Amino acid sequence: MRTIDINSDLGESFGAWSMGEDAAILEIVSSANVACGFHAGDPAGILRTLEAAAARGVAVGAHVAYPDLVGFGRRNMDIGSAELSADVIYQIGALQGLARSVGTQVSYVKPHGALYNTIAQNRRQADAVIDALLRLDPTLKLVCLANSPLLGWAREAGLQCVAEAFADRAYTAEGTLVSRSRPGAVLHDAELIARRMLRLVAEGVIEAEDGRQIPLQADSICVHGDSHDAVTIARTLKAGLLAAGVNIRAFSQGQAS
Amino acid sequence: MRTIDINSDLGESFGAWSMGEDAAILEIVSSANVACGFHAGDPAGILRTLEAAAARGVAVGAHVAYPDLVGFGRRNMDIGSAELSADVIYQIGALQGLARSVGTQVSYVKPHGALYNTIAQNRRQADAVIDALLRLDPTLKLVCLANSPLLGWAREAGLQCVAEAFADRAYTAEGTLVSRSRPGAVLHDAELIARRMLRLVAEGVIEAEDGRQIPLQADSICVHGDSHDAVTIARTLKAGLLAAGVNIRAFSQGQAS
Amino acid sequence: MRTIDINSDLGESFGAWSMGEDAAILEIVSSANVACGFHAGDPAGILRTLEAAAARGVAVGAHVAYPDLVGFGRRNMDIGSAELSADVIYQIGALQGLARSVGTQVSYVKPHGALYNTIAQNRRQADAVIDALLRLDPTLKLVCLANSPLLGWAREAGLQCVAEAFADRAYTAEGTLVSRSRPGAVLHDAELIARRMLRLVAEGVIEAEDGRQIPLQADSICVHGDSHDAVTIARTLKAGLLAAGVNIRAFSQGQAS
Amino acid sequence: MRTIDINSDLGESFGAWSMGEDAAILEIVSSANVACGFHAGDPAGILRTLEAAAARGVAVGAHVAYPDLVGFGRRNMDIGSAELSADVIYQIGALQGLARSVGTQVSYVKPHGALYNTIAQNRRQADAVIDALLRLDPTLKLVCLANSPLLGWAREAGLQCVAEAFADRAYTAEGTLVSRSRPGAVLHDAELIARRMLRLVAEGVIEAEDGRQIPLQADSICVHGDSHDAVTIARTLKAGLLAAGVNIRAFSQGQAS
Repeated sequence: MRTIDINSDLGESFGAWSMGEDAAILEIVSSANVACGFHAGDPAGILRTLEAAAARGVAVGAHVAYPDLVGFGRRNMDIGSAELSADVIYQIGALQGLARSVGTQVSYVKPHGALYNTIAQNRRQADAVIDALLRLDPTLKLVCLANSPLLGWAREAGLQCVAEAFADRAYTAEGTLVSRSRPGAVLHDAELIARRMLRLVAEGVIEAEDGRQIPLQADSICVHGDSHDAVTIARTLKAGLLAAGVNIRAFSQGQAS
Repeated sequence: MRTIDINSDLGESFGAWSMGEDAAILEIVSSANVACGFHAGDPAGILRTLEAAAARGVAVGAHVAYPDLVGFGRRNMDIGSAELSADVIYQIGALQGLARSVGTQVSYVKPHGALYNTIAQNRRQADAVIDALLRLDPTLKLVCLANSPLLGWAREAGLQCVAEAFADRAYTAEGTLVSRSRPGAVLHDAELIARRMLRLVAEGVIEAEDGRQIPLQADSICVHGDSHDAVTIARTLKAGLLAAGVNIRAFSQGQAS
Repeated sequence: MRTIDINSDLGESFGAWSMGEDAAILEIVSSANVACGFHAGDPAGILRTLEAAAARGVAVGAHVAYPDLVGFGRRNMDIGSAELSADVIYQIGALQGLARSVGTQVSYVKPHGALYNTIAQNRRQADAVIDALLRLDPTLKLVCLANSPLLGWAREAGLQCVAEAFADRAYTAEGTLVSRSRPGAVLHDAELIARRMLRLVAEGVIEAEDGRQIPLQADSICVHGDSHDAVTIARTLKAGLLAAGVNIRAFSQGQAS
Repeated sequence: MRTIDINSDLGESFGAWSMGEDAAILEIVSSANVACGFHAGDPAGILRTLEAAAARGVAVGAHVAYPDLVGFGRRNMDIGSAELSADVIYQIGALQGLARSVGTQVSYVKPHGALYNTIAQNRRQADAVIDALLRLDPTLKLVCLANSPLLGWAREAGLQCVAEAFADRAYTAEGTLVSRSRPGAVLHDAELIARRMLRLVAEGVIEAEDGRQIPLQADSICVHGDSHDAVTIARTLKAGLLAAGVNIRAFSQGQAS
């Protein structure tokens, strides 16, 4: 029986501002990427998300980001390695503290937004993030874009990595994400998405934008929870996987590659 | 042989802005109250302070504060209990992460500035801070103003407390600090300060502003490091204590009351 | 024919976080209190709100606040007078710049949240805000809680003041707002609210919580736009006033008292 | 008689953190680039700087920056055009408000740090800044790196530009700054610097790193004030220019090119 993890970004409210359908998403996912305060998340709000995740047995990861609240961590920043490394440790540590206070723990790290995309390709910044994990706790797993150079760099450095596929994104023939600026980059058909992900789990392939079947090895599937439609997609995906006999389980509770 | 701790605030630079004579102060103190990013301290700068403290065997405490960078945590904020509690856990956690990454640890918590003064007297905010420590790690010691109500509240709640005296401050006959707004509230004579603290350590008394000797039980003496004069005062104080046979040792390495 | 202003808080989104039904509210109000970045509002978002207000001919006021994004400006801060005064000038100036760039202007100032409530009663902070307006532009009108001491202080200082009533709030027999912590403090019945406000405009009285009719002189009525219900209340109120022949017009386009 | 402007960055303290020798520098320069709160400068501190500049008759420019306090605006950010444009207007507006409140005005704009360097070459971000000035006030002069593409773009758009030379920097044979990462990029010899700048003013040439004399047209010379040495360099430079009969005058009080 196949096993896969489903992850989503949570805890992205900030003070008086609400974001995301956290309660609905926590019923679906096995892993919650929780904001750490740099792109989103105030401590009291993060704490509530962690309590809810703990109550549902959902694994917790640190969703670390550039220090850019107004830009929601979506803007590239040319940040020095020492600063980036310390920023990452600070954020994980803060989340670890909050998690410990509600009886759960941080088992992995998933960089957010621009940081996620940058370190998938940029060696210097990737090394700064890898270094942060090695120095803080080398047993923390790192969630990486499937087929990205980051996977190799992080494994070489001794980290356990989790390759991630995006449920609602189109892929190029090279196995990378189609840029959001291109038409068709984002998928909206819940049934189609569910079929694509089922094939990914069952056969390790995905249909690229040119119609070819390409190999895509993924340990976790990322779904969104920022709209009603997103929650519907996530639910449909999960139902499809379960109906096909796939086991949904946090990668942090099993063996990462 | 008497033993006392000397503590000081460190890591209060922020990005391009420098503050304090951290290197000089680390040669003097046994405990370093390290800023956690809410009133001062960026992650990379905090990390450097922690490395320096670790290299000198100085104990580390979390200098938690209100979220008020521009006000340096010196302005009272009427912050809700859940928010304050989560803010404190977040800050301690962040510092714990950074400390762990350089091979040291956070052994105590000392609230900063307005938060320090407020919780010395204000039960609601005090309880929020106490609750934060209990939830995160009840073995974390809490540094409290000597003779303040906070000492009793925190001990009742099961925390280990450290009573603190201020080297350069005048005391009222009731054993509390003379308000900074009054003349003579801050002492500048290094020799006088050293004598007062020696007597405090040896006899448990201090001369109040009205000339009376009053009891003041303290486990730690706070010195400042934000100016050349402050460093001179701290050095003179330490030399005086050592010459009198007093042992300078972090309270976190012994027994707190 | 009676004339009244209706105002509401707008531009309170922040970066990726959305707040309020700005488009719907701009169809209702004659004055828009626009966030200035300290409790809410990023520059690009503020600019869009200003463009929309300008397009509909809605007057613009600076909704100045304490520097407390995570607390949404709702927490009291014991901020020094020089700092508060400069903070207020900074915020008004920033909004004036953005307003000028889209062909409109800032014609009044309405403090937000905790600052609004504090200066209604606290002379020192009130004076700092008054001083800011006098130094920047004494023709800026100041929106004040009806029946508050602030009205007198500001008028004595030479400012034009606008007394404000809250559509959805209960009033004490003394003419002040019933504290939100008490049951019945916030009204939800749109028709009742419309009737109360019509009587306020027509007769200058409002029914207090004890049933007595008390005098309440107001130049502007504050409505909210942060929920579907709030927009419905605002629409019902406006329709009721118009049906009764009341003219809705920005106070800044007429004579303030 | 030749005329030149000398400018420097001021108002870069932040809350409790002090930076720069503002008082000393205000005795030397004719133009003060005043921080606007995004990379440095809190409102009350900015106000004090503006008062001091006004008292000495020094012209004021808005030193606008990326929103990056912890990075002091020195890190490149891939910020969208609408956001950048609004950020620039917000900052200028805020400074205009503060300036007006102390009886002075903002007569020019000088981008800071990474923003300065980026828009010297990057058309998209340059256009966003140019657009901000055009929309807010097209009479605001823009300080640009001498010999940079920005000069042409801004002039084409209708802005008045001020070409700027850096007193303490080496120049390439192409007339651009030698990168700080290369040895000899920053000059420290005050007498040499004074001679180079005198020649620049008198003859419009500067000696490049390879020894060649290259043309460099500049309307203003930038000096620093962040250290005792920097102030000495600035003083020596000014004395040298005055001794040679050069008139030191703010470009904003004359004709920019």
